[in-house]
Amino acid sequence: MTTVHTPAQPEADPRVKAVFGDIRATRKTDFINNLWRSLAFDPALLESTWADVKRVMATPSQLDPLTKELIYIAVSIANNCGYCVHSHTAAARARGMTDAQHAELMAIVSLAAKTNHLATALQVEVDPVFDTSQRG
Amino acid sequence: MTTVHTPAQPEADPRVKAVFGDIRATRKTDFINNLWRSLAFDPALLESTWADVKRVMATPSQLDPLTKELIYIAVSIANNCGYCVHSHTAAARARGMTDAQHAELMAIVSLAAKTNHLATALQVEVDPVFDTSQRG
Amino acid sequence: MTTVHTPAQPEADPRVKAVFGDIRATRKTDFINNLWRSLAFDPALLESTWADVKRVMATPSQLDPLTKELIYIAVSIANNCGYCVHSHTAAARARGMTDAQHAELMAIVSLAAKTNHLATALQVEVDPVFDTSQRG
Amino acid sequence: MTTVHTPAQPEADPRVKAVFGDIRATRKTDFINNLWRSLAFDPALLESTWADVKRVMATPSQLDPLTKELIYIAVSIANNCGYCVHSHTAAARARGMTDAQHAELMAIVSLAAKTNHLATALQVEVDPVFDTSQRG
Amino acid sequence: MTTVHTPAQPEADPRVKAVFGDIRATRKTDFINNLWRSLAFDPALLESTWADVKRVMATPSQLDPLTKELIYIAVSIANNCGYCVHSHTAAARARGMTDAQHAELMAIVSLAAKTNHLATALQVEVDPVFDTSQRG
Amino acid sequence: MTTVHTPAQPEADPRVKAVFGDIRATRKTDFINNLWRSLAFDPALLESTWADVKRVMATPSQLDPLTKELIYIAVSIANNCGYCVHSHTAAARARGMTDAQHAELMAIVSLAAKTNHLATALQVEVDPVFDTSQRG
Repeated sequence: MTTVHTPAQPEADPRVKAVFGDIRATRKTDFINNLWRSLAFDPALLESTWADVKRVMATPSQLDPLTKELIYIAVSIANNCGYCVHSHTAAARARGMTDAQHAELMAIVSLAAKTNHLATALQVEVDPVFDTSQRG
Repeated sequence: MTTVHTPAQPEADPRVKAVFGDIRATRKTDFINNLWRSLAFDPALLESTWADVKRVMATPSQLDPLTKELIYIAVSIANNCGYCVHSHTAAARARGMTDAQHAELMAIVSLAAKTNHLATALQVEVDPVFDTSQRG
Repeated sequence: MTTVHTPAQPEADPRVKAVFGDIRATRKTDFINNLWRSLAFDPALLESTWADVKRVMATPSQLDPLTKELIYIAVSIANNCGYCVHSHTAAARARGMTDAQHAELMAIVSLAAKTNHLATALQVEVDPVFDTSQRG
Repeated sequence: MTTVHTPAQPEADPRVKAVFGDIRATRKTDFINNLWRSLAFDPALLESTWADVKRVMATPSQLDPLTKELIYIAVSIANNCGYCVHSHTAAARARGMTDAQHAELMAIVSLAAKTNHLATALQVEVDPVFDTSQRG
Repeated sequence: MTTVHTPAQPEADPRVKAVFGDIRATRKTDFINNLWRSLAFDPALLESTWADVKRVMATPSQLDPLTKELIYIAVSIANNCGYCVHSHTAAARARGMTDAQHAELMAIVSLAAKTNHLATALQVEVDPVFDTSQRG
Repeated sequence: MTTVHTPAQPEADPRVKAVFGDIRATRKTDFINNLWRSLAFDPALLESTWADVKRVMATPSQLDPLTKELIYIAVSIANNCGYCVHSHTAAARARGMTDAQHAELMAIVSLAAKTNHLATALQVEVDPVFDTSQRG
């Protein structure tokens, strides 16, 4: 159960229809996943969220599409968003992630969590040499 | 200040000396950063932690070294480990991360945090189509 | 499934009966939600938890009841407690939260998460002007 | 130390100058806090972040400006962003938050954290009555 | 810098004086650490927080005092509260924690963080046999 | 649903068979819980994870087995891993945890969460006396 009333016919609202149309065109699929269907309860929130996702994730950029999904999964695991882990793991597979890459992603994420907790337990002080703010 | 007594001469302990030597050889640098110096208070913990980091991060694998560091930074941000953000940002720069890639990493991480919180606020249910557990 | 044995007749215990009675009187409803039913496995923990919730949330104070629920939902989202998101969203609706206010709450919470992650990624230093500890 | 090189003369870049000008005009102050100065290392990230903050926080809406800041502080505490706690506490004070309201905010946030952890420890199941998704 | 105005003479307030007196008597020391000094900005919040801490941590109970501090440190690390990690590590040392026990605590906490992230990455389903809610 | 394809006959792989055999021998039970069954999708990740868990949790050490499980549960609650809360609560019960000890664990974990959030809200500065790094 979600915390909002998801409209049965979300595309009866022209703003929702426009966003759903753009999602379909951008992703080249008819499928609209539940996050967008839930967000349809508030067209303004739906529009701004999709605009953000489209700009960052669906526009050619410095990082390749699979790398971007791996980073997205990593954050979603650390923030413990089950829905997001599922949706972005599916997206990564659609972009070619192999089982071996998936396993390596898990190895890195879980190792980072381990050393994150160790550094916090130790309250390690930052090495001055890591200061990259005063370059050039 | 750290929570443990960091030995002034950590390499007086032969187990610490061996690990520090392997860190230097693996990373091709004389520099040993504070995480390892702090962990030297317990040689067994130092050994097992370094073995884990070396195996996952310093061994050729499916993902390239820069991608691995980007994933590590992403988790460290989400887990809010300031020390780790600094150390792995420095490591990513050493592996060629540009300012533009760094900015894009931040854009993805902060967008993921945004949609992670939205999905949790909405309590979105996982789409059945995301089920990749029953493949062939 | 919960991690504790929830008694079938929790009010057979007089301490549980007293707390459930006070919850009903305070909230003006016969309904006792699952958090309290689960806590009934340990009457002392039930008593101290309810005393805390009653004092902070059910006593007239500086902030109005709806604002208090919005803050409670915000923390529950950030801490990723699905049960709490559901129960406090229902409580906020009972105190008059509209769909538009709910959408705005989500917009603020997800924006805060975004800039929280950005500030951590950047390791921004606190501006001295934010120091409000030395007033007057 | 931050993880990026903050330009000494950020407004030499016309895009940065435009954003800083809009921040000053919107907030009616000459002061630009460090988050924006750090983000100036990447004008596109600065622009999109400010656009988001301006739309959500600096536009008249359903919730009053102080309530919005209280929600922002609550999320920043739960996500453990020290910089954000400082900057938004200062913003809340500028919008009239009293010491008593500040204390009450802390009481709610820390109580929510307590019951969030309890509900997770118990793995409480969501009461069917909390389902507000199927309304009318 | 803290976010509240810490009074220079906190014990001029009789409610603060009473709490500080009880802290000193309970802990058998004249030292009052900064958490309590900061909380003195609001005597009611100070009183309720100390009452909670005294009841749970300073009253003889099922678990021995050192075990209780180890659990407190573990949560503080996972929630990334630097102040709390420092104060409770000091408290654990005062109750006899050795360097070897401290190292083992870190090994368990960081391992748990690792498998927590793995289980979330995998979205492992709970084994029915773990259901302890229907006992007897 | 999990995010990986769990093999129907995981022990057809000799590396998986070896790890499962060692789990059974170490724990003196035929039961293999879902975490290990899911990890079987990648034998290397399975091996390294089990080696870590066996070394830290199943080897006689400074802390007794029940205390170790209590610490593991505490971290799993704070990191909000539902699976881990269930599996380690079951493990703690198998090591003799009583209902009263379980209730006390919850009291400590939820109190720590409360003061963790308070200390972050206050941005309390670390007392110099907590510095234990310069001993001896």
